Amino acid sequence: MKQGRPPLPLIIGRKPLLEALQQGTAVEKIFLLRTATGPEINEIKQLARENNIPISQVPVEKLNGFTKAQHQGVVAWTGLIQYIDLQAAISHVVDQGIVPLFVLLDGVTDVRNVGAIARSALCCGAQGLILPTSSSASLTEDAIKTSAGALNKLMLCRIPSVPQAIDVLRLNGIQVLGTQMKGSVPVFETDLTIPSCIVMGAEDTGISKDVLKRADHLIRIPMVTSFDSLNVSVATGMILYEALRQRILNG
Amino acid sequence: MKQGRPPLPLIIGRKPLLEALQQGTAVEKIFLLRTATGPEINEIKQLARENNIPISQVPVEKLNGFTKAQHQGVVAWTGLIQYIDLQAAISHVVDQGIVPLFVLLDGVTDVRNVGAIARSALCCGAQGLILPTSSSASLTEDAIKTSAGALNKLMLCRIPSVPQAIDVLRLNGIQVLGTQMKGSVPVFETDLTIPSCIVMGAEDTGISKDVLKRADHLIRIPMVTSFDSLNVSVATGMILYEALRQRILNG
Repeated sequence: MKQGRPPLPLIIGRKPLLEALQQGTAVEKIFLLRTATGPEINEIKQLARENNIPISQVPVEKLNGFTKAQHQGVVAWTGLIQYIDLQAAISHVVDQGIVPLFVLLDGVTDVRNVGAIARSALCCGAQGLILPTSSSASLTEDAIKTSAGALNKLMLCRIPSVPQAIDVLRLNGIQVLGTQMKGSVPVFETDLTIPSCIVMGAEDTGISKDVLKRADHLIRIPMVTSFDSLNVSVATGMILYEALRQRILNG
Repeated sequence: MKQGRPPLPLIIGRKPLLEALQQGTAVEKIFLLRTATGPEINEIKQLARENNIPISQVPVEKLNGFTKAQHQGVVAWTGLIQYIDLQAAISHVVDQGIVPLFVLLDGVTDVRNVGAIARSALCCGAQGLILPTSSSASLTEDAIKTSAGALNKLMLCRIPSVPQAIDVLRLNGIQVLGTQMKGSVPVFETDLTIPSCIVMGAEDTGISKDVLKRADHLIRIPMVTSFDSLNVSVATGMILYEALRQRILNG
């Protein structure tokens, strides 16, 4: 991204951002001057934490690149998307009598991959994407465009911590399936007709240790060669397809 | 691509290209000055046709952008990849006692999609990709990189015409499966354990009329919503996964 061309409409200044946060405006990301302090800054940080909005601490050049206005060390991208609390999302699905199917992206940051995954999720009947605040792609106009609008039709949950999200999922009776090239169970031997959350990791490093430790099962996509290098959005698509296949055949 | 920075090593001039073609050098694409004529040009065109090498007729500015040398209206990109004749590829697979599985890309031009499809094809046990000379992505260094090297491990067949390729496939007892959102058979009800070629179309326009008319079956990926917009590399991955699943379970 070029400096001076932010991908989303801006909120500029301490008071305007504080008011936006208090009113529940959708905010995608907050940029704070590294050296910014004061009661308003503290309140912004507190509200960001409560609403799982990522904060990036930046040098003044970055903020000046976004805007020529007096920013007081505070610029935020307003969101094109409303996020929803994970527990609320799960309850919403369960209340409708639908078997939950979620996808947790543990370090997938490429906007094109996130977009393609959103399309697959929607087509295959998943209800929501779960995105860690620390390591996910910003859902800018580009991301929504790449998703062909699917990001607007799924429930999107921002989570401050992956282990905590896994706890919430399991407390709600949703099995957590970590995907790994060396996973012990081939995906077609995994029961995906029960409430499930599929966890996909970054293409290079895979899923994190937190997931490895806490997942109910580690699943794999079978391969015929030692060339085990699927694109992450394709791998996610294969697992979502398998879930849909099982759910259709299961009536 | 910026002019003046061709993505592959060049062959420049009439005689050098003619000799390269006669020696069977891998050539990815030929650029001819629109107004070029003469016996050498005719011979170049003839050899290109015989070897299914795409020719692009261009204005002089394009050629001047590639090189400052005397090009005599002729510049070619040498290939990083050796293509193989479709019949030879099929025979090679059959001779090894393997059940053929091919993917024909009917208008998929995005290098990232071709790369991701190559990765899926290799992982799921397909032996080759079939690419029409008229409508496929040039397999440049970028394409190979995006494929994580998979393009170097598959058999790649360039074909002058899709209907002709379908005839060759069917004469060899390989079923031709056109993929379409409205296809009549869900992919999991299609027998993919027999010799098969999966045909994927462009994301916007889908597979061509030639394929619609000549395919043995039109298959679809089931969807739970009316939002029928999968990324083409993801859709291909789902079908290849289904083929692999069936072939594993079939022993």
